[in-house]
Amino acid sequence: MKAIGADRGFELSEGNLFYEFDKTKPEPKGNELLVKVKAISVNPVDTKIRQAPVEKAPRILGFDAAGVVEATGPDCELFKVGDEVYYSGASFYDGSNEEYQVMDERYVGEKPSNLTFTEAASLPLTALTAYEVLFDTFNISSNPENNKGKSLFIINGAGGVGSIATQIAKAYGLEVVTTAGREETKAWSEKMGADLVINHKEDIKAQLDEHQVAPFDYVFCTYDTDGYYELMIDLVKARGHIVTIVAFDEKQDLNLLKGKSVTFTHDYMFGRADYGLNVITFHRHLTDLTKKVEAGTYQHTKTKEIQGLTTETLYEAHQLLENQSMIGKLVINMENE
Amino acid sequence: MKAIGADRGFELSEGNLFYEFDKTKPEPKGNELLVKVKAISVNPVDTKIRQAPVEKAPRILGFDAAGVVEATGPDCELFKVGDEVYYSGASFYDGSNEEYQVMDERYVGEKPSNLTFTEAASLPLTALTAYEVLFDTFNISSNPENNKGKSLFIINGAGGVGSIATQIAKAYGLEVVTTAGREETKAWSEKMGADLVINHKEDIKAQLDEHQVAPFDYVFCTYDTDGYYELMIDLVKARGHIVTIVAFDEKQDLNLLKGKSVTFTHDYMFGRADYGLNVITFHRHLTDLTKKVEAGTYQHTKTKEIQGLTTETLYEAHQLLENQSMIGKLVINMENE
Repeated sequence: MKAIGADRGFELSEGNLFYEFDKTKPEPKGNELLVKVKAISVNPVDTKIRQAPVEKAPRILGFDAAGVVEATGPDCELFKVGDEVYYSGASFYDGSNEEYQVMDERYVGEKPSNLTFTEAASLPLTALTAYEVLFDTFNISSNPENNKGKSLFIINGAGGVGSIATQIAKAYGLEVVTTAGREETKAWSEKMGADLVINHKEDIKAQLDEHQVAPFDYVFCTYDTDGYYELMIDLVKARGHIVTIVAFDEKQDLNLLKGKSVTFTHDYMFGRADYGLNVITFHRHLTDLTKKVEAGTYQHTKTKEIQGLTTETLYEAHQLLENQSMIGKLVINMENE
Repeated sequence: MKAIGADRGFELSEGNLFYEFDKTKPEPKGNELLVKVKAISVNPVDTKIRQAPVEKAPRILGFDAAGVVEATGPDCELFKVGDEVYYSGASFYDGSNEEYQVMDERYVGEKPSNLTFTEAASLPLTALTAYEVLFDTFNISSNPENNKGKSLFIINGAGGVGSIATQIAKAYGLEVVTTAGREETKAWSEKMGADLVINHKEDIKAQLDEHQVAPFDYVFCTYDTDGYYELMIDLVKARGHIVTIVAFDEKQDLNLLKGKSVTFTHDYMFGRADYGLNVITFHRHLTDLTKKVEAGTYQHTKTKEIQGLTTETLYEAHQLLENQSMIGKLVINMENE
């Protein structure tokens, strides 16, 4: 079967070091599914890992997939052959940039029946990240009534995670304010449900004051944590909670958290799998996601579709991601349709 | 009435700049109590604030008191004249190093009937800090059954906060491991209820491994946050929570939190009052503390008593605190008994 990998970490400026190779079709063991991959999405994490040293070559990237169950391991209980599924995966599995992928069924959800494979592939990684941050880290209630009056500030509302996090937070009763820098991204974030979109190219605090926005219960950083660190502490309520999913470039002064007893989490969605920590949570979050998508509460976040998985289309996708110009999600259709 | 203050921040090496002065006896307004102070305790926070610039001279320190209600403001609902009370206070009130002190009744608890005033004065600041960290920050359950199997690691178990935090955590069902550096502090921490006391002068990780201690759900730092920062992240569970109450001297690498999605809080007990955030929480925590002390579940943490509040005894108390040799709490008896 076809797979696309690379033998070492590389910058895009070095040229296209992705190559296609023939990989033995894997066999699902235990509670693993073998999935025929129909569509994948490319995420910022792909571009970061692409540049890191390779531990076991060739390294196959890809952390979003939608497809069809082709075979099941002997212990599978959640899915059967023929089921349409979607998932993000885990760091210790080969990624989804291949024809067939094995995946622990506890990381998998049933694909929303009202979405195409490419639409479905836009969601798992970003939605799982948003669900984990909102429900497992901020610990918001699963009863929207209990979240009434609570507020969330999302740095970069039009990005992949910001787009779905806004929808989830709104569906669960929170007030949501986001940032965006262009007319198109502002319009997109409003379409995702943001109550207010602040222009991050102007004075954010002044704009919030102008709109009489009170300090936030929750602040979620999906872009440039160093640049927003002090501002986030300034904008969060006393005893409030800040979460980032973006690594820092510099050391920071943790004493700034003290005066307001601020809580800070550096969330990493794949950490749950790395530590084998209650991983059925992935399946549960995806199941809720599917229910809400099928009910029309959430919309998919696919904004761009590339036809066919080749070394060229993958390289092009990485270029688009690194340009930072994406709104929503970029998806690759594996079926060349 | 007598009060002890200082006009500027000072180091103990500069000599004793505390002085006694006559202050007009304050009148309680609104929901304030006027308390005849019978005993106070001196805390590390006194020594830190003593060295900071004075905003309004003379500055009166003191953040622990036990005494008797002498008068009540017109809106008081929780206490009446003659009630025996204890409290820590707030940064915007004059401290307890004075004969009579006014205090918002929501910050006050009924003194445990089985404790003397000096014994009672050992508890409020440290217990309120421990209650806040355990219940409001770690968010442990008030039902001990729900905390079974959860574990807490306390850096410096024999200090003021460590001593009462150990007792509270044990009473609410947690497993508690602490650190201590001497035979006396180890014995004291065991007396407070610690399940295991680790020698912080030797390899902490090796000792925990030797005792087959699993990673901790909660890590509570009450000493040298910089020195323990990396170790705490190493010892906490994935998706675990670290809290410090001790300011950093240096900037730190927050990326270390990422791999395990660790949550970090810099807790500051007086922040709740500074921001007017649900301050009745102080009264509720002290009420539970009193109930548990009267039931014999918690013991007071007074280990040293100095007679009479004078500039000399206060200076002596600050010396003892800064020597870092204290076990439990130092109390000054205001009645010269």
